[in-house]
Amino acid sequence: MSGLLTDLYELTMAAGYFEAGKADEKATFELCFRRLPANRNFILVAGLPQVVDYLQNLSFSDDEIGYLKSLEQFRNASPAFWDYLHVLRFTGDLFAIPEGTPVFPGEPVLTLRAPIVEAQIPETYLLAAIGFQSMIATKAWRCVESAHDRAVVEFGTRRAHTAEAGTLGARAAYIGGCAGTSNALAGFRYGIPVMGTAAHSWVMSFACEGEALRKLQRLLGESTIQLIDTYDTLEGARQAAKLGPPLWGVRLDSGDFAVLSREVRGILDDAGLGDSKIMVTGDLDEYRIAELLSGGAPIDAFGVGTQLATSADAPAMSAVYKLVELDILGIKRFTAKYSLDKSTVPGSKQVFRAAERDVIARSGECGSGEALLRPVLLGGNLVEPLPSLEESRRRAAQCIAALPPALRELDQAEPRKVIYSRELRELTDRTRSNLIP
Amino acid sequence: MSGLLTDLYELTMAAGYFEAGKADEKATFELCFRRLPANRNFILVAGLPQVVDYLQNLSFSDDEIGYLKSLEQFRNASPAFWDYLHVLRFTGDLFAIPEGTPVFPGEPVLTLRAPIVEAQIPETYLLAAIGFQSMIATKAWRCVESAHDRAVVEFGTRRAHTAEAGTLGARAAYIGGCAGTSNALAGFRYGIPVMGTAAHSWVMSFACEGEALRKLQRLLGESTIQLIDTYDTLEGARQAAKLGPPLWGVRLDSGDFAVLSREVRGILDDAGLGDSKIMVTGDLDEYRIAELLSGGAPIDAFGVGTQLATSADAPAMSAVYKLVELDILGIKRFTAKYSLDKSTVPGSKQVFRAAERDVIARSGECGSGEALLRPVLLGGNLVEPLPSLEESRRRAAQCIAALPPALRELDQAEPRKVIYSRELRELTDRTRSNLIP
Repeated sequence: MSGLLTDLYELTMAAGYFEAGKADEKATFELCFRRLPANRNFILVAGLPQVVDYLQNLSFSDDEIGYLKSLEQFRNASPAFWDYLHVLRFTGDLFAIPEGTPVFPGEPVLTLRAPIVEAQIPETYLLAAIGFQSMIATKAWRCVESAHDRAVVEFGTRRAHTAEAGTLGARAAYIGGCAGTSNALAGFRYGIPVMGTAAHSWVMSFACEGEALRKLQRLLGESTIQLIDTYDTLEGARQAAKLGPPLWGVRLDSGDFAVLSREVRGILDDAGLGDSKIMVTGDLDEYRIAELLSGGAPIDAFGVGTQLATSADAPAMSAVYKLVELDILGIKRFTAKYSLDKSTVPGSKQVFRAAERDVIARSGECGSGEALLRPVLLGGNLVEPLPSLEESRRRAAQCIAALPPALRELDQAEPRKVIYSRELRELTDRTRSNLIP
Repeated sequence: MSGLLTDLYELTMAAGYFEAGKADEKATFELCFRRLPANRNFILVAGLPQVVDYLQNLSFSDDEIGYLKSLEQFRNASPAFWDYLHVLRFTGDLFAIPEGTPVFPGEPVLTLRAPIVEAQIPETYLLAAIGFQSMIATKAWRCVESAHDRAVVEFGTRRAHTAEAGTLGARAAYIGGCAGTSNALAGFRYGIPVMGTAAHSWVMSFACEGEALRKLQRLLGESTIQLIDTYDTLEGARQAAKLGPPLWGVRLDSGDFAVLSREVRGILDDAGLGDSKIMVTGDLDEYRIAELLSGGAPIDAFGVGTQLATSADAPAMSAVYKLVELDILGIKRFTAKYSLDKSTVPGSKQVFRAAERDVIARSGECGSGEALLRPVLLGGNLVEPLPSLEESRRRAAQCIAALPPALRELDQAEPRKVIYSRELRELTDRTRSNLIP
């Protein structure tokens, strides 16, 4: 993993720490979300395996170091710094709230403790990895929740911010409860169920629609999903019905789904295809799904693309990564910033979850409830295998089910009660009075 | 480039085309944008080198083929299909509108002509690559335009939808006119100027702010940008001013920039640092930049993160990829779909740009104005080296400057006149009457 996949200032600071003789200081950084995105009542954490992979493979090649040396900003960096960077590996500790856990603003999702350069450089990658996948997992849950027991399939790689983001988004969407993805690489890499059968181009490539449907059925058998809106949806439905079984179902991609789904359902039922399903795709999100279902549309499955793959109504997260503590030759120093509207809370932390509230405490405090932050890497090595994707997906379902019902609504609810422990509040006050006399 | 980095249905269709004896049919697909995003008057095209790289490296490994064989959807695929997929490479032609060209809805940005399987599989990747980079290039132009001659630097990798998307977004932002990026990998890979010096953690890592600023200046010399809002912006400004030159400038990341920039300017000027600049970062977009400058705030440079890296006000594009033409043993068949609100126009095309309007014509028609679609790959090989990133950036500036002034506004203007040639309209009517009797 290229050490350059970060913001330049992480690297100028790395040089600065080194030249200032701080390379042996141990720093503790934490990653948390500053606010909830619009209409969200929690954020579903995802992206941890990518963080671990990054940390365990972080390094700088000769070419990359050569590039940095060529930059004006490193003109005063010493040869010793380049030697240091050349052998740099992540040797620190990572504590994390497991994937599939709902979290709230201010709760540390990750805590990194490492020599300051090793802890500083990962900032950019970690924010992007956890921010993006958590955003998509959260959005996916919303779509799945709105569909009740009907399947929601992630179809959005073409709209994702690069196809690679689509692949990781598919992973996050699966944690959020999607039944599968259209992204074949996500299936290969992560074992996610893959779905999808044909596009309009398939139908258009044949001189007549009936032939296109017949050939697809011959190939796909019981997996067949006929796309029936290329020319005329009801005519397409009649052609699919005429072919009879096997037919998993049909897909509508345009028009008024509330009306068309009923008419298509009638055509399929009249042909004795009562078990064949109706899937809809195109401009769906959690609100549209809820609206269709509350109107009684006979839809069995939803393919959600753009809105899910980009979390279009809330396409960025407020994740931040802040220095909270330094260990200088065994002496601790607590740090915080007091920028207007952007202050931070010092010290290494733990989060305790009880039924009605979360408590953010100092690490080492004994709280009541589940301690959410768990060791993942110690000395750069995995403490135990990471949970499987299926386990993270199950955890998400269980943890969300355990939340108070109001937090599981699609609209903004009364915020979760998250409080700081007394010890942490005292530390905050002490740190502030030390820094701002 | 993994052949699996696509939607599954591209691959089931590939099997279907093959099994239906269509593997030798040549298909022409085109990629275009269906609509303009909100408040945009054009879309600035970017992402072509990534498309070329994908097409020239597309292949399937044994493991990937083994994975596909394991899927229910491919149960009826023949051994011959797997042999075919195993040696599949892109051998077709690619025509493209050059990077840095503003385009309008309906204009084919890419045209692919290849054996149908080779042309079908790339759909997902191409949509994501061109859609994403064009989206970011367009957003970047808006930010740069709003800043007049002040520098806008792309600072958003931490908010991008994966750090990799941040890197490609930095590339697109540079085409759109940004002065540089904070992403070091984007600098290394693409030669984009890189910027950034220190974060709050730098300041916090020292026992006192003054020491942090002094150490940074010692390292960075004339590149020094002091971040002054960790504890108190004006006190930070005074500390930076006390150190004197060299100082490129200071950065404000919180508070009321309109007020603080004036006060900080005064502190710097009073210290004889009239040449030192003020950069602001934090929750900026084109509107906020315009507002600050129209209010006379003495700001010299803007770092734009979230809004730029995610195009947050319009985080997805309506790019589509449609089959327009088939060549079956030398006989042409034109294709289109007539789905409600999603119809397409048949036949291979060219776009002619004149001062006041664009004409979308049939390929081979002789139009007036600049023919925008140019051959990039013929028989899978590059026709000529792609333009450099600098050339694409210059082209963007020149092409946008040549647009009517109303289209260069930040708000929605009267849409560009884009018409179809008579020949293309006749082809559309004929195709429709053939398909829908």
